[in-house]
Amino acid sequence: MAGIIVNFCPTGMVPSKMMTAHVPVAVSEIVEQVHEAWEIGITIAHLHARADDGRPSASGETYARIFDGVRRHCPDLVICASTSGRGGIALEERTEVIALRPDMCSLTLGSLNFVAEASVNTPDTIVALASKMKECGVHPELECFDLGMVNYGKVLVKKGLVEGPRYWNLLFGNVAGFQPTLLQIGAALAEIPAGDFVGLAGVGRFQLAVNALSVSQGLGVRVGLEDNIWWDEERTRLATNASLLGRVHELMALQGHTLISAKTFGDHGFYNTQRFSRV
Amino acid sequence: MAGIIVNFCPTGMVPSKMMTAHVPVAVSEIVEQVHEAWEIGITIAHLHARADDGRPSASGETYARIFDGVRRHCPDLVICASTSGRGGIALEERTEVIALRPDMCSLTLGSLNFVAEASVNTPDTIVALASKMKECGVHPELECFDLGMVNYGKVLVKKGLVEGPRYWNLLFGNVAGFQPTLLQIGAALAEIPAGDFVGLAGVGRFQLAVNALSVSQGLGVRVGLEDNIWWDEERTRLATNASLLGRVHELMALQGHTLISAKTFGDHGFYNTQRFSRV
Repeated sequence: MAGIIVNFCPTGMVPSKMMTAHVPVAVSEIVEQVHEAWEIGITIAHLHARADDGRPSASGETYARIFDGVRRHCPDLVICASTSGRGGIALEERTEVIALRPDMCSLTLGSLNFVAEASVNTPDTIVALASKMKECGVHPELECFDLGMVNYGKVLVKKGLVEGPRYWNLLFGNVAGFQPTLLQIGAALAEIPAGDFVGLAGVGRFQLAVNALSVSQGLGVRVGLEDNIWWDEERTRLATNASLLGRVHELMALQGHTLISAKTFGDHGFYNTQRFSRV
Repeated sequence: MAGIIVNFCPTGMVPSKMMTAHVPVAVSEIVEQVHEAWEIGITIAHLHARADDGRPSASGETYARIFDGVRRHCPDLVICASTSGRGGIALEERTEVIALRPDMCSLTLGSLNFVAEASVNTPDTIVALASKMKECGVHPELECFDLGMVNYGKVLVKKGLVEGPRYWNLLFGNVAGFQPTLLQIGAALAEIPAGDFVGLAGVGRFQLAVNALSVSQGLGVRVGLEDNIWWDEERTRLATNASLLGRVHELMALQGHTLISAKTFGDHGFYNTQRFSRV
């Protein structure tokens, strides 16, 4: 048996209410679903803000309301905010949320294509985001969609731009990223420095298989509607965040694995010590 | 012993006369060095045009002069032209060279970061370039800097946008791409469909090790100043295109490997049958 990090990603940038009524978009919905997940058991909440019209937003004001609500209900939860530039969000907007000093912020370690668009994170942008995080006591969630991003993350570590304990989030199955074959997952894991924390995600129809693989290996899990809105691989039934998370817990229970609590994970050094409300 | 494809890349977009006097930049220099390489032994010439000031250019007029000169001296050579958008070259400019109907054109299968910049190839751009190549009888050089690009290439094949015999060019060692470890190279090769042709490149200081590895496995080689301007990994001595190529031939000879001639490779279906000057 192993302790497993569960990284909960309820919203993301892509799922809309048109696609599924279950995706939380309003601040109150996000807070409520994170609270529900917290009661089921999660380690990290990976959060995205949305504007009133449901579109992705980098608004610091919206993020602040989400953080307040989540902290009220889930005091120990490790809060991770997205700094994604997908859809053309400017660097200044992307840094707004970092200044709010959540525990962690996502740091995508390269440029890549998604199915219908390019997501551009230039080296300068990545360095600027990493520097801002370091200044604000925020730990980066080292987000990798392919092998080269893992390499670039290690370059940032060598340059001293990423300090302290490290958490890697490896996302498999994007059409222009690495795929969830054992060989590719193994090749990626071989590059993660010993002692670092790591979680795996499967995009779209790969979520369940990657979740199950992660649990089988005692590796971190990322689960939620951000990556996949369906319950089944055949896409006959929409999932809810709670149902996806509940299934991961069932998988864990069958192998005797336990959740690494948010408190345990945070105390490994992932809490933002600049967060004034924490004692 | 095996037959080996040698893909010669004398110029690229990055090396300047300031960096090394040996890089061919003017049309006459490029033609001359390709001719010299042809006499040593190459299968494909991967060519980049430069403007009069030495900067990368997508000018059809310049490419036409290069092609004319190369064809005069090396009638059977498989000519491959770059369609790179690195440095912000617009799509219309990138398609100019395709309309000249060389045998092959490079098709970079995704967006990625280089050390100091992003190279953006959106899905729409890639599809547009592939469609133009198909229309013009040009075979894509399927250029991959990471595993996801291989996957995207296979998606284009499935969609019918890439037809006929296929040649993959896998470039290892870019800071934000896959690295030349045996595990990563093995993971990439595992994704190449059976029967396809493949060549490996090592960027910068990795060129020699990747060249030697390729020869050891009877895989295609890419060699030239585009990827590496130094003779030695310690960077004490500048290389010439002829010296780098000569060393590859020495490696091949030591293992009894022979060159796959341009004619043999071209006759596998890589010649552009729309090229009117070919009988």
